[in-house]
This record gives sequence, structure tokens and C-alpha cells, in this order.
Amino acid sequence: MTAQTNQNQRIVLASRPVGAPLDNNFRLENTDKPVPAKGEVLLRTIYLSLDPYMRGRMSDAKSYADPVAIDEVMVGGTVCQVEVSNNDDFQVGEWVLAYTGWQKYALSDGEGLLKLGTDPAAPSYALGIMGMPGFTAYMGLLDIGEPKPGDTIVVAAATGPVGATVGQIGKLKGCRVVGIAGGEEKCRYAKEELGFDECIDHKAEDFLQQLNNACDKGIDVYYENVGGKVFDAVLPLLNTGARVPLCGLISQYNATSLPEGPDRLSMLMGTLLVKRIKMQGFIIFDDYADRYNEFAADMTVWLQEGKVKYKEQIVEGLDNTVEAFKGLLEGKNFGKLVVKVNQPL
Amino acid sequence: MTAQTNQNQRIVLASRPVGAPLDNNFRLENTDKPVPAKGEVLLRTIYLSLDPYMRGRMSDAKSYADPVAIDEVMVGGTVCQVEVSNNDDFQVGEWVLAYTGWQKYALSDGEGLLKLGTDPAAPSYALGIMGMPGFTAYMGLLDIGEPKPGDTIVVAAATGPVGATVGQIGKLKGCRVVGIAGGEEKCRYAKEELGFDECIDHKAEDFLQQLNNACDKGIDVYYENVGGKVFDAVLPLLNTGARVPLCGLISQYNATSLPEGPDRLSMLMGTLLVKRIKMQGFIIFDDYADRYNEFAADMTVWLQEGKVKYKEQIVEGLDNTVEAFKGLLEGKNFGKLVVKVNQPL
Repeated sequence: MTAQTNQNQRIVLASRPVGAPLDNNFRLENTDKPVPAKGEVLLRTIYLSLDPYMRGRMSDAKSYADPVAIDEVMVGGTVCQVEVSNNDDFQVGEWVLAYTGWQKYALSDGEGLLKLGTDPAAPSYALGIMGMPGFTAYMGLLDIGEPKPGDTIVVAAATGPVGATVGQIGKLKGCRVVGIAGGEEKCRYAKEELGFDECIDHKAEDFLQQLNNACDKGIDVYYENVGGKVFDAVLPLLNTGARVPLCGLISQYNATSLPEGPDRLSMLMGTLLVKRIKMQGFIIFDDYADRYNEFAADMTVWLQEGKVKYKEQIVEGLDNTVEAFKGLLEGKNFGKLVVKVNQPL
Repeated sequence: MTAQTNQNQRIVLASRPVGAPLDNNFRLENTDKPVPAKGEVLLRTIYLSLDPYMRGRMSDAKSYADPVAIDEVMVGGTVCQVEVSNNDDFQVGEWVLAYTGWQKYALSDGEGLLKLGTDPAAPSYALGIMGMPGFTAYMGLLDIGEPKPGDTIVVAAATGPVGATVGQIGKLKGCRVVGIAGGEEKCRYAKEELGFDECIDHKAEDFLQQLNNACDKGIDVYYENVGGKVFDAVLPLLNTGARVPLCGLISQYNATSLPEGPDRLSMLMGTLLVKRIKMQGFIIFDDYADRYNEFAADMTVWLQEGKVKYKEQIVEGLDNTVEAFKGLLEGKNFGKLVVKVNQPL
């Protein structure tokens, strides 16, 4: 898996997926390992984060960030070590959080790198529970969801890095937490390990009935990260004054055809109106960058005290990245999906 | 128009409308004028408010308030005078704000009556600019819409009591205000009398193009009170971080068939997510009752100083109520619609 010392390897976007991404939408390229100029560092990718939002960057539809250009390296958050340094601010072996994408090596002038120290205890956590997914869970739930003790919170993708964190913070705040996940194993984990009150398998035939039973006092906070049939099931259960932080719509990212059925837009807006519901989209670092320290302080304590648990699924090797990402959009991962790209120095 | 002194007249709901209300959904009844017991007052309706939300009360779909039962008097806000008093708290001739509905006389034990004094300058204003519609405009725009100087605000039903107030408050807050109204006369009034920067006729063939031109910097606040084709036109123009106070959906109240076209629900939610938009429904007295005084203080000054203008359309006689209400849902009124039910004492 480790590249030759004089070689870089990278995955570029070869064409834009229509529907689910296919292997031929990507191309693995071997190039020369780049050489840092004065003031630059050579970053050795140790961990690459895979996240659902990346599907959006593969499309050229207008979104909150520019799409990845064809033949360009796929973007993504990474945890790297400095392998060569021509920059006095960085020493060889130092760990950093970067955004260098799907490749083994990258150059940086230091701009935008977040230092993680020379011997971090769990460097990959910076891509998950202590990073974007954890921060997204925390701010969306607490700032937009405004959970109160006794509230019923529903969150889908309940064992993913966002959903698992939302649910565990909800429990810490005294709420009843109902998760939704794909398959019995994930549901059992959510209840037994994460402490959710209930977790419903959305593949079950009586999913709707189970959700209704689990939410017999309605839903006060629906943390939305999937959309689609889960949202349709949740909508009629929302209580007056409910809050819907809108964090993602995973189920829609590969969608190309229209759902059938009644006028869902009018149903949504009528429900928001009549029940005085707040629905609010957010993009974590755009909306809440100045509150990262508040999150990090809380989460550090919760992890140390064992009040929040965190599960990773680590895939070995850059050449398994595309397969892992395809699985992510189908819910095949179990825990935060991270690719181990190189061995640490 | 004035009832015999020993007679009451009232309009009851005879059947539930399907689509637009028809004359035979209502029945005008002559009954005895009620006689107040000890502790009660006889209220003489002077003004009856007609508002779009009443359409919802005619249906038995689940809503924020119970539907009006068949054969019961239609509900509605009223400004009344005390004609007979067996209650020491109320004197004959005193004016009150009540919720006695579509009838000439009603009894009350005093509970829930808001005193307006013995000689109010403009008693009907309590049904409009100083009452529910004005308060709705004020809180929805300022608390949920959070307008900032330079923002572009769009509001439909621009000459109605809510829309006109939203737009004028928007101008007071330093915003660019674009109204939408039905017909040239209303648009001219919004611009020339109310001071809107633009007002677009939604009946114009090039409505979409005109709205796009008027919102060349996008839309920061869309005060939603109509839904339907106006919402569809506004959605793609919403800026990142836009706010959508959701106050009403007039265009949908009579709707029975589904709109054609793409998956509008996914478009809405995708837009809310990607552009980090907040959409929030509210019901004015449920959500903001404790802030009425704040509103009343501001609005009293604005009216006195001529900074906010207010237009009423007063219909004479209870027997014209149904016709007037049907017109309200079609946008035929021009200004706040009020029925003058009885002459003042």
C-alpha cells in the first residue's frame, strides 16, 4: 500500500456521476512526489476522511462550494504528517489537519493547516468526533434543535459519526432519543452501546409503525441528515414548536428520479406553518467557526469521561477509497469512515 | 342592516367547503337576541374582521385550532360595544376587542375581552394594524426575518394588512422592499403610498422576469403569506443565509389538486440546506403574546408620525360577509377587510 518514496498517487474525478458514482467516474493516477519550495512543506497523508457531502462536489449543480473540476484531485479532509519542511513554523513528523484530498502526498505553504502536535493520542479523531462531523452534530442539535429535557429527538444514520453524536448529546441533555439505522446490528449498537432509547431499522417492513410507536409523544427535534422516506415518515409526527436542523440529505444525493405521491411541498409548508416549526439548514464551518472551542471543550470532557463513544471504520489503502465511498452512500459503513493512506513516519 | 332590537342574526357553517367556499356552505339565521345573566355582558358587534385563516377553520383537517363545528357560528375577531352590562367590570357603551364571530350580538362573562376605552379614535384598527395582522407582520419580520439594512425583503399580498405592514417596517429598517400584488392599481399603491421600492403584478405575463430583475441581489428575507407559484418563483432567488418567516399560505387554502412539475419538496429542502436558510412557521398569539406591548408601542408611534400607513376596506352589513370573504381568498379586497355589522351606540 505504501507508495514508492519518489511517487505520489492520487484519485481524480474523471467524469461526473449520474446517480450513484461508478468506478469509471474516477481515475487513479501515479505522479511524481511533489518537491516543496521555500516556505512549503510536503504533507504525507495518513488518514483521509470520507463524507457524504463529497457526492455534492462531484456534481456541477450550484451548491455551497464549487464542484471539483474534471481531472482534478477529489477534495477531502485529511490528517497528515510533515515529511519535509521548508517552513520554520512546521517541523518534520508534526501532525496537522489539512484538506488535501484523495492523494498520498501534497504540498502546503502552511495556510489553513491546524496543528495537532507531534504525538497526538488519536489523530484520526480530528476527522470525526473532534472535527467536522462531531462539531456538526453538536451545533446543529444544540443551537438550532434547542433540546429540552424530556423532548423526543429523532436522528437517522444513527450509528454514523453525526447521528451517533447527536443521539448521545441528546441523552446527556435529558432527552428521549430515537435513532433510525439500516439493519439490526446497527440498531442494537445504537441502543446497547450508545444508549439510545430506541433505534428503528428503516429496512423493516413495519418501519412506519415502529417509528410511530417509539414516538408516542410526537417528535420535538428531528435532526435531518437523510431526507427521503425517513423525512416523509417523520413529518406527520412533528410536534407543535418542533425544530428541524437540516444537516444533510444523504438519501437524495444519488437521486435522479422523482418520488410519487401527494404534493409533499405543500404538506411540508403547511405543517411548518400550522405547527410553528423551525427548519434551518446550516454548513458547519461557515455558520459556526467561531464556536469551535466551545464544542471542543465539551467534547474532550465527554470523551474522557466515557459519556460519548466513538466508532471508526478504517479502510486500508488509497486504492480502496472509491469502493468505500460508494458504500458510504449506501449505508454500508458502520462508524466514521476513514481511509488509512500511508503508514505514519 | 340594523337588526330589530330583540333579534340576533348570525352566520353558521352549514357544510364544509371543498375548494373555494360557496354560498351554500353558510346559513344566515335569525334568533332571539341573547339576554345576559348575572356577571355577563351583552356585546353589540360593531366591526367583524375577515381574515384568510378562517378558511382553515372551515375544514376538518388537523390544524392549530379546532375546526368550526357544523351549524355553529363562524369564528372571528370583533370590535364590540357593551350594550347591556351585568358585570361590574364593564360599563354600557364601553368598547372591547372580542372573538365573538359572524353575528350581531353575543354574550360574554368578560373573560378574554380586551378593553379599548369608551371613545377610541379608530376602534376597527384593533382588528388590523394594531391587532393580529399588524402584530403578525411585526414579529414575523423582526424576530424571524431579522432584517438588516441593505437586505432585500420580498412580501406578497403587498397591500393586505400583513404585507403592507411588513413592507413599511422593512423600509423603516433600511431594507430594499419588493412587493408582489394582484393588479396594477395595488402595485401603484404599494410603491406610491406605502413607499415600496418595487411591486410586481403576479398576473403579469412576465412576472418571473420582473421579479428576477427587481431582486438583482437576491432575496434575504421572504415573508411567506401566499405559497404556490409565488413561492416557486422566490425559492431560486433566496440568498445564502436567507430567512423565511412562514405566516400563511393563502394560495393553498382552497387548493384541491396537485401542482405539476419537478420534486418541489426536494428542491426546497436542498435549497434550505445548501444556502443555510431558516424557514419558520409561527402563530402570532401562541408564540408572541408576551411581546404585544413592545409591538404596540412601536406601531403607535409609527402611525402617529405617518411612517406607517393603513388602509381598510369596510363592507356594510352582516349579510354581505360571505361574499366579502369569498373575495378575500381571491385577492379582490384592497386593504384590511372589515364588516361593519351594527351602528355604534
